[in-house]
Amino acid sequence: MLESLKQKVYEANLRLVEYKLVLFTWGNVSEIDRETGLVVIKPSGVSYEKMKPEDMVVMNLDGEKVEGELNPSSDTPTHLELYRRFPEIGGVAHTHSTFAVSFAQAASDILCYGTTHADFAFGSVPCTRDLTKEEIEGEYELNTGKVIAECFETREIDYNAVPAVLVRSHGPFTWGKNGSDAAKNSAILEEVAKMSYLSRTLDAEPANEHIQKKHYFRKHGANAYYGQK
Amino acid sequence: MLESLKQKVYEANLRLVEYKLVLFTWGNVSEIDRETGLVVIKPSGVSYEKMKPEDMVVMNLDGEKVEGELNPSSDTPTHLELYRRFPEIGGVAHTHSTFAVSFAQAASDILCYGTTHADFAFGSVPCTRDLTKEEIEGEYELNTGKVIAECFETREIDYNAVPAVLVRSHGPFTWGKNGSDAAKNSAILEEVAKMSYLSRTLDAEPANEHIQKKHYFRKHGANAYYGQK
Amino acid sequence: MLESLKQKVYEANLRLVEYKLVLFTWGNVSEIDRETGLVVIKPSGVSYEKMKPEDMVVMNLDGEKVEGELNPSSDTPTHLELYRRFPEIGGVAHTHSTFAVSFAQAASDILCYGTTHADFAFGSVPCTRDLTKEEIEGEYELNTGKVIAECFETREIDYNAVPAVLVRSHGPFTWGKNGSDAAKNSAILEEVAKMSYLSRTLDAEPANEHIQKKHYFRKHGANAYYGQK
Amino acid sequence: MLESLKQKVYEANLRLVEYKLVLFTWGNVSEIDRETGLVVIKPSGVSYEKMKPEDMVVMNLDGEKVEGELNPSSDTPTHLELYRRFPEIGGVAHTHSTFAVSFAQAASDILCYGTTHADFAFGSVPCTRDLTKEEIEGEYELNTGKVIAECFETREIDYNAVPAVLVRSHGPFTWGKNGSDAAKNSAILEEVAKMSYLSRTLDAEPANEHIQKKHYFRKHGANAYYGQK
Repeated sequence: MLESLKQKVYEANLRLVEYKLVLFTWGNVSEIDRETGLVVIKPSGVSYEKMKPEDMVVMNLDGEKVEGELNPSSDTPTHLELYRRFPEIGGVAHTHSTFAVSFAQAASDILCYGTTHADFAFGSVPCTRDLTKEEIEGEYELNTGKVIAECFETREIDYNAVPAVLVRSHGPFTWGKNGSDAAKNSAILEEVAKMSYLSRTLDAEPANEHIQKKHYFRKHGANAYYGQK
Repeated sequence: MLESLKQKVYEANLRLVEYKLVLFTWGNVSEIDRETGLVVIKPSGVSYEKMKPEDMVVMNLDGEKVEGELNPSSDTPTHLELYRRFPEIGGVAHTHSTFAVSFAQAASDILCYGTTHADFAFGSVPCTRDLTKEEIEGEYELNTGKVIAECFETREIDYNAVPAVLVRSHGPFTWGKNGSDAAKNSAILEEVAKMSYLSRTLDAEPANEHIQKKHYFRKHGANAYYGQK
Repeated sequence: MLESLKQKVYEANLRLVEYKLVLFTWGNVSEIDRETGLVVIKPSGVSYEKMKPEDMVVMNLDGEKVEGELNPSSDTPTHLELYRRFPEIGGVAHTHSTFAVSFAQAASDILCYGTTHADFAFGSVPCTRDLTKEEIEGEYELNTGKVIAECFETREIDYNAVPAVLVRSHGPFTWGKNGSDAAKNSAILEEVAKMSYLSRTLDAEPANEHIQKKHYFRKHGANAYYGQK
Repeated sequence: MLESLKQKVYEANLRLVEYKLVLFTWGNVSEIDRETGLVVIKPSGVSYEKMKPEDMVVMNLDGEKVEGELNPSSDTPTHLELYRRFPEIGGVAHTHSTFAVSFAQAASDILCYGTTHADFAFGSVPCTRDLTKEEIEGEYELNTGKVIAECFETREIDYNAVPAVLVRSHGPFTWGKNGSDAAKNSAILEEVAKMSYLSRTLDAEPANEHIQKKHYFRKHGANAYYGQK
């Protein structure tokens, strides 16, 4: 069942290693089949070297395991909440990449200091609020997803235009049209975070709004002209 | 047509990957045949792994595509403007390398703190002004080239002695006698930018003018004595 | 004698190289056989390339060499003191990894800024006091172990919950259920130290206690639910 | 002539690449045969990939080329002055390694913040004064060597106990019992410089003198007990 999706999710998880975003088992990618509402995700705590495509776990959007020998990633309820709340996304990735985590730990948005960021996201990559004691001691991973969605709603950020978030004191989640795209966005976010760290320590100011718009819409939307048709 | 130049430009583009200056497709190198005025450049948004020599695009200095199936790099008008305004250069490279971008985002020149810089460029690597709203919303990539040339003219910097610029809020362009040399200058600029970042955070002052002159002219010009004849 | 343990300790030492934690011969891993009280440790100053499993040295807990042609690591008395004072640990690792050493040199604990740290250790990774002149000029390596144990006792830190320490002006020691686990903890500590460095320079505050508890107990203890059974 | 020494110097130069200390051709290693007073050194500006053992250049201590098709490194007069002034050294290395250069550009000694440094050098790695206009415009490379020797004499530093210097606004020179040892010291210096950068930005104080002495003499001199006999 969903064998080709399992293969794709397996490969998208390996991209995190290729992009040098994960140490040991610290990361996970999922992808959803929107027709059936089934989500395929990495199993929990399994090393990338030993993992096989058939180890991927199939979940439904109610959080029930539909297929798989292994436990799904402990972050699964966060992924599922993102699929429910952000209906146009097809893949989710989570890493503990060094610079993105450091901004999350500093409770800081990643401001748009230039075109590398604007090519990727329109405006700041937001950092969520802290979860409350109750949210942490309750359904923690589900509540993490809820706090992400709340952050985008409260701040009126379009999740299609900003495919990444920093969960405060924790680290980044990214999304995209599929799992591979979400993993790629994790790599871009980490590079953008590194540049932001350096720019900020060089006393940078955010880029002006005109160049932010120009670069974002050069690559995204109906009038994009970057790349091939 | 221009098959050997396409091969050279293809290889110069791969140098950016070898030098670890690019993530995904974020970079491009071109070279000009000054006799015919034709410029060969990387296609837009094509991955370095899949790219072939025959994918290179041939442009003339009026900005018209002369040969090639694919769209040229979206930064092509910037390259062409540099070839028009800097008549002695033979190659241009553009990257989003981490430290050089960070100085561009911080709207800061890269000051000459020592001999590594002086071996490469005579004086600061300048950072341009911001483009105006009109320049951004108009022919943006062409205007980027114009702002670079304006920066060198206004500040009376010799483009032969400083083969690099930082475009504010964007990133570096470098040039040289051919595409491969321009790519090499991108690698040197990134290393010089990293050293400048570290030196600045250690409270460095610029190197004195005597040692700047000594090192620059030890490697460049009629009395150079570095290397082999 | 203890051939399979020598093989394991040999492999655990090579992990330090694989994790990019050591330059030249700067690191060592040991493991104890608690039934016999014998400790197997890397020989002193032998390169990782030339080292063989049979070069590992066997010591008893009284500090006497029981088997081996070569001198044991000069840090052996520190390892032995840790095995005596922390009776539930099975392996010890010591490196001069860059970021962990830098915190040790700055005489600073590594504070818990987020979940990457909390997944690894419950609370700060402590930095010991300086050794006194007498402790340094006397049995220095033994006294290093004593100062580590004193640090955990004085500050009432559970060595099972914090598997790492920074020895002031020196660097990190880590431990775990065996040598391989101790080496893995050295790698995690270095990544956590790097994130802490970046977070601190971004003006981070420590993570709140609820999320620290949640993440620590998600991975450790009777109610852990991370990973597979 | 001196074929085996050429082979050794060739290999020592390649170590700089292996240790990731050089970009392009920015580095050189030499070694002296103290019996004949002949020095073998890397040719100037030759890439490490194309270089062969027979390309090494033989000089005498008067600065005359004794054998070799190619020009010697432009830094040769600095190497020769070091061999004349520091009679017990057997090899010299020069790099533009990132962190060591940054301290040289910041005109800052590298202070001893801990045992990694103390294992390598006894006390600060000094940064020289600037060369004067006359020294720069005259025999610059020779004068660089003179300023290094002056620095050690004026500050009463033992070149055997501190096998490295930072030439202000320029970068590091290191030395040792042969070329390979000098190259190794360049690698250690770079790591020590990186740790010092991080420690300093974490507000570290220098290590106390007792631990500095302990670690230095644990590895050096008649009572050393690190490593094998």
